[in-house]
Amino acid sequence: MSDKLILHEFSLSGNCYKVRLTAAHVGVPLERREYDLMKGETRTPEFLANINANGRIPVLQDGDRFIPESNAACFYVAEGSPLIPADRFERADMLHWMFWEQYNHEPNIATLRFWMGWVGVDRLTDAQRSQMPIKRKLGNEALKLMDNHLKGREWFVGNAMSLADIGLFAYTHVADEADFDLALYPSVIEWMERIMTQPGHVPMDA
Amino acid sequence: MSDKLILHEFSLSGNCYKVRLTAAHVGVPLERREYDLMKGETRTPEFLANINANGRIPVLQDGDRFIPESNAACFYVAEGSPLIPADRFERADMLHWMFWEQYNHEPNIATLRFWMGWVGVDRLTDAQRSQMPIKRKLGNEALKLMDNHLKGREWFVGNAMSLADIGLFAYTHVADEADFDLALYPSVIEWMERIMTQPGHVPMDA
Repeated sequence: MSDKLILHEFSLSGNCYKVRLTAAHVGVPLERREYDLMKGETRTPEFLANINANGRIPVLQDGDRFIPESNAACFYVAEGSPLIPADRFERADMLHWMFWEQYNHEPNIATLRFWMGWVGVDRLTDAQRSQMPIKRKLGNEALKLMDNHLKGREWFVGNAMSLADIGLFAYTHVADEADFDLALYPSVIEWMERIMTQPGHVPMDA
Repeated sequence: MSDKLILHEFSLSGNCYKVRLTAAHVGVPLERREYDLMKGETRTPEFLANINANGRIPVLQDGDRFIPESNAACFYVAEGSPLIPADRFERADMLHWMFWEQYNHEPNIATLRFWMGWVGVDRLTDAQRSQMPIKRKLGNEALKLMDNHLKGREWFVGNAMSLADIGLFAYTHVADEADFDLALYPSVIEWMERIMTQPGHVPMDA
């Protein structure tokens, strides 16, 4: 890994925040380049050809090479640090929670947050609007599963903070912006406070 | 990793096949336990309490510990093998494709395959049926992105088959079951033939 990493991002995206929070804990500086999603700045021909054919952020750039997908970028930055457990089972268990987040948490909680906070409910398509109740149900099920897992535990995997915690924190701590009631999930709240008081923590709007 | 791994699975699920194909290439035996999704066998109180609180398969069991999420299970099985690149960038790039698969490919192609082949279009909810056109569009976009990436390349990452190829092969090679026309994606077809002729390959129905 070089000493000059560039993060192509939309700073209020939880997926982008994951990479910044990981880098802050590891002590790796990031140069930041901001894109306006609402202006389609990640779907231009230049972006698709040079940064990410998938038209999404974050993308981590190291020299002339690019890593799309937030969790892959976090893994790249954190290798060799305590954020990735040394134990083989715990490493796989960390990945389990990171894949679970992208499949069961982000498409529900982050999507509702984006629809409600940026697109606007009035401007959703009928097909999108018809998805709101199921996304709310599945989002609450994801938060409940997290809450149950955290009862009696400090961290998602083993006995230390890992990329699993960072990945899950990113959109959980702003779930209220999508009208999720986090007070229903007290173990999640305690865990979020634990993360926010760690040395090296940076908030999303830093 | 112990020498007795158990795969809790539904054998025609591409996600479960990924773990079997990985294990076959690495030479790790798996004991297989089949669950009938249509009978809700992964949503019983016993399954939720003892195997996976998320109610999904595959789950890889090693002793009394469990790894849900197909790609995490593949990573666990393949660590130390050539299926995970030794180079740090390539390792992250492999994870990029694995996360991309779960976000952009599987929810479109695998879900349409499941709806059309198992649930039955007549039995979908209105909200599900309204998602079919967008899932078909996004599924074709995913296949097109793969096809473009594979032009002039043999494998998704670097110069060797990795978990990225296994993960993407699983649902791509049965995309025709969801009425995707793979003939539109010639580089994908060549890549699938490359995978199917590798030593150690096992088909989905083995």
